[in-house]
Amino acid sequence: MKAPGIVSQNITLSIDAMGGDKAPDMVVEGMDMALKDLPGTKFILFGRAPQLAPLLEKFPTLSANVDLRNAEDVISNEEKPGVALRSGRKSSMRLAINAVGEHEADGVVSAGNTGALMAMAKFVLKTLPGIDRPAIASVLPTMNGEIVMLDLGANIQCDAENLVQFGVMGEVFARNVLHIQKPSIGILNVGTEVLKGNDSVKQAAAILKETHLPIDFYGFVEGDDIGAGTVDVIVTDGFTGNVALKTMEGTAKLFAGALKDELMKSLFGKMGALIAKPAIDAFRERFDPRRYNGAMFLGLNGICVKSHGGTDAFGFCHAVKLAHELVTDQLNEGIKEDYARFSSEHHTIPLIPADE
Amino acid sequence: MKAPGIVSQNITLSIDAMGGDKAPDMVVEGMDMALKDLPGTKFILFGRAPQLAPLLEKFPTLSANVDLRNAEDVISNEEKPGVALRSGRKSSMRLAINAVGEHEADGVVSAGNTGALMAMAKFVLKTLPGIDRPAIASVLPTMNGEIVMLDLGANIQCDAENLVQFGVMGEVFARNVLHIQKPSIGILNVGTEVLKGNDSVKQAAAILKETHLPIDFYGFVEGDDIGAGTVDVIVTDGFTGNVALKTMEGTAKLFAGALKDELMKSLFGKMGALIAKPAIDAFRERFDPRRYNGAMFLGLNGICVKSHGGTDAFGFCHAVKLAHELVTDQLNEGIKEDYARFSSEHHTIPLIPADE
Repeated sequence: MKAPGIVSQNITLSIDAMGGDKAPDMVVEGMDMALKDLPGTKFILFGRAPQLAPLLEKFPTLSANVDLRNAEDVISNEEKPGVALRSGRKSSMRLAINAVGEHEADGVVSAGNTGALMAMAKFVLKTLPGIDRPAIASVLPTMNGEIVMLDLGANIQCDAENLVQFGVMGEVFARNVLHIQKPSIGILNVGTEVLKGNDSVKQAAAILKETHLPIDFYGFVEGDDIGAGTVDVIVTDGFTGNVALKTMEGTAKLFAGALKDELMKSLFGKMGALIAKPAIDAFRERFDPRRYNGAMFLGLNGICVKSHGGTDAFGFCHAVKLAHELVTDQLNEGIKEDYARFSSEHHTIPLIPADE
Repeated sequence: MKAPGIVSQNITLSIDAMGGDKAPDMVVEGMDMALKDLPGTKFILFGRAPQLAPLLEKFPTLSANVDLRNAEDVISNEEKPGVALRSGRKSSMRLAINAVGEHEADGVVSAGNTGALMAMAKFVLKTLPGIDRPAIASVLPTMNGEIVMLDLGANIQCDAENLVQFGVMGEVFARNVLHIQKPSIGILNVGTEVLKGNDSVKQAAAILKETHLPIDFYGFVEGDDIGAGTVDVIVTDGFTGNVALKTMEGTAKLFAGALKDELMKSLFGKMGALIAKPAIDAFRERFDPRRYNGAMFLGLNGICVKSHGGTDAFGFCHAVKLAHELVTDQLNEGIKEDYARFSSEHHTIPLIPADE
């Protein structure tokens, strides 16, 4: 993502200090790193104060910009979303979300339990007008640059209407945050022909094709179009999206591991790797998953960013910067505008019949 | 895949000469390559005889083992499965399948239109007893060796029963063809907890968990478990499986391309790559998609292998060798036995209720 033209002042982010494998240390350190790039940002930090106060002392500049609030409860990774929603009212996660709901903060970041965060954020913040279900979106590296893909796991089953809403939200994201002037949208499918796929994708494609909104609908894309960067926005249901995202991660690991294995097997391999180290490091940096850390919950009436639970301070710093950017770029205002225009017209579009 | 212990004699394969981007040249050349490793194999080759006869002349050993049969019609890649089924009765693809149906050949290989091949093969060969729908399966490289994944695109929507059948077929495949003594089976899902996913995967998991068959059911796996080789058999619906497979291909391309880019940018990168060339070549060979060419249509009452349409002679050779191996390893006999045992018991298993 490019940096926004103007860094807005007076942005306050609320942070769940207790989520993530290495929390709260990596959270506080990540906030400090983010603050260096985003001077003027204020934080409200929720978590166990007796544990957090001594941590904050190590970062004086950060401390001066943090409002520390005690929260006794922590939502575990094993907690079911429904249970977290009912019994986690005093948790660091819930209080951090509440700060956005009560307009104390402009956005919230947590590296905790994804399902609980989504359930609570949906309950507290509600969805934007016209959006039935929020989606999890993430920026991904491709051959040509970056794309956004959604949904990555919030909605296991999606109808055509959901997919169309994801398309509209993704388009605004690509425009406002990735700064792509006229982003192209593709729906993930098992083939590019019109008759391929299930009813949801076929109907969603028909709707997006016919809309009068200035949307550049490409059509269907396949799994290999993700890495190829064929379109700027890839729309899919949460089941397929989650599997695709994790398959990418697994394939990346497999390749990196196997390449290292082969290089380390021989002296020439080791020598070559040593000489080419700067190039290999540049390659590694380009795909460093920490640089892509931060999944966005799109469609909520408030900015909510989920950091990977296993990340470190550098990764959490990126999630904080992403939340800051989503506020600066007025993502939600864009979605509201577009969706209002979209929903006023698209009910007239005939749905194509099911064809299996 | 390991080579089978004993190479069976008197195996006849029927080949569609006309399918694939570089057909028929790469088909004939691939057959010749395969014959060198599989002496004694006989072929029935279907296609345009005036075009094929001069091609075969270049390969005298192959020619002596080929029964060339003229077929005027060719199924195009654009042909819809239903149309191909109705009007392609004299096509090279259909006649090649018929040879298996009429027990002239032990298995068929085609690099043509996947949908048409599946429709025709299902019509001519029928499914094995107890199998409702055939699945497309493929062997994939992982961190630890090789796994089999199915379905990769034959069935867009699958119920629990379909997934269970895929599990049984995949288990037999891993045992008989990959020679894994007690293969573990996982169902692809968006999380590993019992309550995750849609109804189909939850119910299928419940059935496979309770079965008294000596099946090693691991539970749910996620997208990154494919590359990690967490289980030997990955079961999924055709929509998700197709997207996952193509996402793997796309990610592999993205990484290979980006690594090359970075290495070629600098002199040290180029030098390092040159010195490490044998290691890089070994890495490349390990993941050469041609070595994994050949998707199997499991569940049919006959061996049917689909080669990638874009492959070359080396890739087609692998598809031919795979078909030969499936015959030798008596894959279908194993599926029949297992499924008969399985279906006689599993109807007593209670299905878990839907929980979203």
